[in-house]
Amino acid sequence: MTYELYYWPTIQGRGEFVRLALEQGGADYLDMARLEGPGRGVEAMMRLMKDEAVARPSFAPPFLRDGEVMVGQTAAILAYLGPKLGLAPEAAADRVWVDQIQLTLADLVAETHDTHHPVDLGAYYRDQKPEAARKAEGFRGQRIPKFLGWIEQVLVRNPAGSGWLVGARPSYADLSAFQVVEGLRYAFPKAAQSALAATPGLVALAERVRALPKIAAYLASERRIAFNEDGIFRHYPELDAQA
Amino acid sequence: MTYELYYWPTIQGRGEFVRLALEQGGADYLDMARLEGPGRGVEAMMRLMKDEAVARPSFAPPFLRDGEVMVGQTAAILAYLGPKLGLAPEAAADRVWVDQIQLTLADLVAETHDTHHPVDLGAYYRDQKPEAARKAEGFRGQRIPKFLGWIEQVLVRNPAGSGWLVGARPSYADLSAFQVVEGLRYAFPKAAQSALAATPGLVALAERVRALPKIAAYLASERRIAFNEDGIFRHYPELDAQA
Repeated sequence: MTYELYYWPTIQGRGEFVRLALEQGGADYLDMARLEGPGRGVEAMMRLMKDEAVARPSFAPPFLRDGEVMVGQTAAILAYLGPKLGLAPEAAADRVWVDQIQLTLADLVAETHDTHHPVDLGAYYRDQKPEAARKAEGFRGQRIPKFLGWIEQVLVRNPAGSGWLVGARPSYADLSAFQVVEGLRYAFPKAAQSALAATPGLVALAERVRALPKIAAYLASERRIAFNEDGIFRHYPELDAQA
Repeated sequence: MTYELYYWPTIQGRGEFVRLALEQGGADYLDMARLEGPGRGVEAMMRLMKDEAVARPSFAPPFLRDGEVMVGQTAAILAYLGPKLGLAPEAAADRVWVDQIQLTLADLVAETHDTHHPVDLGAYYRDQKPEAARKAEGFRGQRIPKFLGWIEQVLVRNPAGSGWLVGARPSYADLSAFQVVEGLRYAFPKAAQSALAATPGLVALAERVRALPKIAAYLASERRIAFNEDGIFRHYPELDAQA
């Protein structure tokens, strides 16, 4: 069965967390909005979101089609895919824990987005720069260290002592932690470096994920879209100013 | 087994979604931070978040303890509790759909929070009023109608035609939809009334939830904390101004 992923074709964004899982899981998938032809492309994705024949519409991309099943919301997609792709632990309580970690990373992603769109989702960053500067100050000073420090605690307290977040094997939460580290390094290089200096376990985790053969191949491929200023992790140097 | 819920004792907040599920599920639970005694109260909750003996710490309240299992993140708590409390459907695909709905409602809750704290999580609303006014404008004009319209579509497209969001019986997503409607009516009475005029199915759903005997008893009890201006749904009349 070929999975169909629907997400914006020119950014990593939230869809990237799903792409990483599909790649590491060795899944057969199509990144539908990046393709051409019937049922493909951005317009087809938008039609699918509005199609009244779809019983379970998604509020926003990303969403995934797996035969008759359609699933939206990044964390729900990953909770659905994780077991199928060998990227979730076996025990139910462990799966809930992976889900909890993913949701906490999702909160960090949402706060990252809000640094460049703090007051108007429908306007450009350039139209809310003073507000963004204020939002970014607290994000750099308090939120990045708090989130990354929490991930470090999760790593340190993993009874398996494996260097992975949960149990002895990589899960989709590890891939997502890698993506968050990469994104913060791109968007807030100074603040990320400062915060990561206190989280050596997380730094090592990111390197382990980067070295997974399937992830390494993906990152080197044209399938990996570069970070850019249309995505969630945007590099605006003025927002990374040190206090 | 008695569930232990840990959440701020004076607000509904995100913990209220868990409280509603516990109440409707007829669960034996303790709202730990609202109680006095060893291991109870806010300070005990904060200690538990920092306790290095806790292998699976939560980033923030709410979190739930069920014997040896600790679960944080509202949507993860509900995904964990739903099947145990008879508030989730049986089929795995249906459970993912309930999770997806919950996560979309959580996005609405987060945006609601940001209307009064758009640029500084650590400061008071009164210190970011102009920014809040700008944030609230788009929230009232675009986001509330879009979110509520999406919920209405979910209701209308439910093949069971039951008036509930998923299948033929109430799930925790229905309870959460009720809570969101209640919260928006409290915080943005004008904007909520305007948006709800276009979503009669959602209005009816909220009334059906309110009339569930266990929910009705809960809402009439002292266990239900009143909405207030320390929570997520805050009524600041200036933010509800009509365009």
